[in-house]
Amino acid sequence: MKGLRDRIIESVGEDLLQIEKALLDNLNPYLPLVSHVGRYILFSGGKRIRPLLMVLSARICGYSGNQDKRFSAIFEYIHAATLLHDDIVDGAEIRRGNPVSHSIWGNPATVLVGDFLLSRSISLATEAGSVKILKILADTTAQMSEGEIEQLLNRDNPDISELDYMEVIKRKTACLIQAACHVGAILAEATQEQEKAMADYGYNLGIAFQIADDLLDYVASTDVFGKSTGKDLKEGKLTLPLIHALGNATAEDRERMIAIVKDSDTTVREFEEMVNFIEKYGGFSYAKDRARHFVSEAKKSLSIFKPSNTRETLSLLADYVLEREL
Amino acid sequence: MKGLRDRIIESVGEDLLQIEKALLDNLNPYLPLVSHVGRYILFSGGKRIRPLLMVLSARICGYSGNQDKRFSAIFEYIHAATLLHDDIVDGAEIRRGNPVSHSIWGNPATVLVGDFLLSRSISLATEAGSVKILKILADTTAQMSEGEIEQLLNRDNPDISELDYMEVIKRKTACLIQAACHVGAILAEATQEQEKAMADYGYNLGIAFQIADDLLDYVASTDVFGKSTGKDLKEGKLTLPLIHALGNATAEDRERMIAIVKDSDTTVREFEEMVNFIEKYGGFSYAKDRARHFVSEAKKSLSIFKPSNTRETLSLLADYVLEREL
Repeated sequence: MKGLRDRIIESVGEDLLQIEKALLDNLNPYLPLVSHVGRYILFSGGKRIRPLLMVLSARICGYSGNQDKRFSAIFEYIHAATLLHDDIVDGAEIRRGNPVSHSIWGNPATVLVGDFLLSRSISLATEAGSVKILKILADTTAQMSEGEIEQLLNRDNPDISELDYMEVIKRKTACLIQAACHVGAILAEATQEQEKAMADYGYNLGIAFQIADDLLDYVASTDVFGKSTGKDLKEGKLTLPLIHALGNATAEDRERMIAIVKDSDTTVREFEEMVNFIEKYGGFSYAKDRARHFVSEAKKSLSIFKPSNTRETLSLLADYVLEREL
Repeated sequence: MKGLRDRIIESVGEDLLQIEKALLDNLNPYLPLVSHVGRYILFSGGKRIRPLLMVLSARICGYSGNQDKRFSAIFEYIHAATLLHDDIVDGAEIRRGNPVSHSIWGNPATVLVGDFLLSRSISLATEAGSVKILKILADTTAQMSEGEIEQLLNRDNPDISELDYMEVIKRKTACLIQAACHVGAILAEATQEQEKAMADYGYNLGIAFQIADDLLDYVASTDVFGKSTGKDLKEGKLTLPLIHALGNATAEDRERMIAIVKDSDTTVREFEEMVNFIEKYGGFSYAKDRARHFVSEAKKSLSIFKPSNTRETLSLLADYVLEREL
């Protein structure tokens, strides 16, 4: 049986090619360093999930124009700008298996190219001529930086709740994916009901996506996903599996777990110890259940549309979020 | 006789108070760190020249609404975001006599709050409901980051021409001041002719402003302007006085000047030596002449408006650019 990934790529392969082209076209006339740093971050293995979701959301709402690929680049540019700035914030050295850009070009160029991509994305969006779309984008990027700031303030804090966590991932991840789907619907001049359905789909998919990503940080190996194992723990970022385990641990275990969280130089042994604690208190299976719940919510939103290849692909994309981590 | 500064403040004192209030109001509901870092950069001695220009530009074009102060905050937020990110780019330690924010809150918070202010400014602008205004803002911020990137690429390069320099200051400074004046006119539903006049006024004022600022970096003392003397030279930034002098120097002097530019650790003695070279080749008086030229162009643009207090104040503001450096 074909894997989910293959089935998705089979149905959207042509879209992905056109999205790649749009990403390049909209960046080309700009200054050398911009396109250098910009291209490096944009063309080093991203999955284009955000532009793809915009294109499919427009399509399921009946879009018949030819500007969808062009506008879909907006969401990859915003995403890339965030990656550039987050790498400075996190002090990360590796992303998707490559050295991060600030370790190659330095903080200055990385900050400025991030700014450029952000402005370029808004500038591109003005071409759609819709204040409504621009408002969604501006509010989204404002929320994204607030989410990152909140996450920064929460660092090393063992008392953050599942609610705090949800608030952060809503802002830093779900918000942009929701915007991609919502804007796709608006481009297609969708009905209110369709708009809401796609925004909800994007929101739930985004939440599931981030929970799965945070799970992956515990279970994935560097080779496959281009990320060091246990990056979040190393940076003092508490994610759902750990938050759930902390909430259910005995006083003694909790104390030890907090000591590991606060250790600024987490060893592999400490990481493994933490994995065992999380396992013991059901943190991984809880997080998986939550991710499944949001995937199922996302799929429910699609039910107002009549069956079609596009609906099927959107549904497969939701499932794929889960498969990544299994 | 009253100084220019006093005359300007007398005529716009009430506007400045309302601008201060708008800057605070539009920031208030946000996260603690955002308003902390945001306030620090926003409320540590800025001159509010950009919001003030927007308000006066709207007024001279007959604006009669009550949203001008609110929207004028956009231009101070964008300016503040740029300052935050530039301080990281420049590695500066002091701005306006105070330690810069990244030395207090660190790069992460500084990057993210800059991002937030940028997004917040676009978000605020969407309330005006004009795609035209949003396009100007997005193009402006994109140009600003390109200008900064270009300046970064030009560092330590003794071969940059006056034209290269003009290109950089157009993007990094004039563009935003032009946008403030242009958007003021659009808010007032000005005629095409008035719109163009105010955009031209802003552009020329912005160019003069940056040339004067670059001159100040050579002639000002730290006490009065909160800047270390010779910061640009220290950072390998070639500005107009030096570019002009380099272009007119003998081969021998030029060689020595280039050696000073390339020295990454400029001493006070080297700085003084450079000041003498620039003096010898008329770099300072040339830059002053250029600044005067652009101030006079700015004032010419105002001639399409009938005489009024507002026109007088805009004219005084142009003169004030020059007085700062005399």
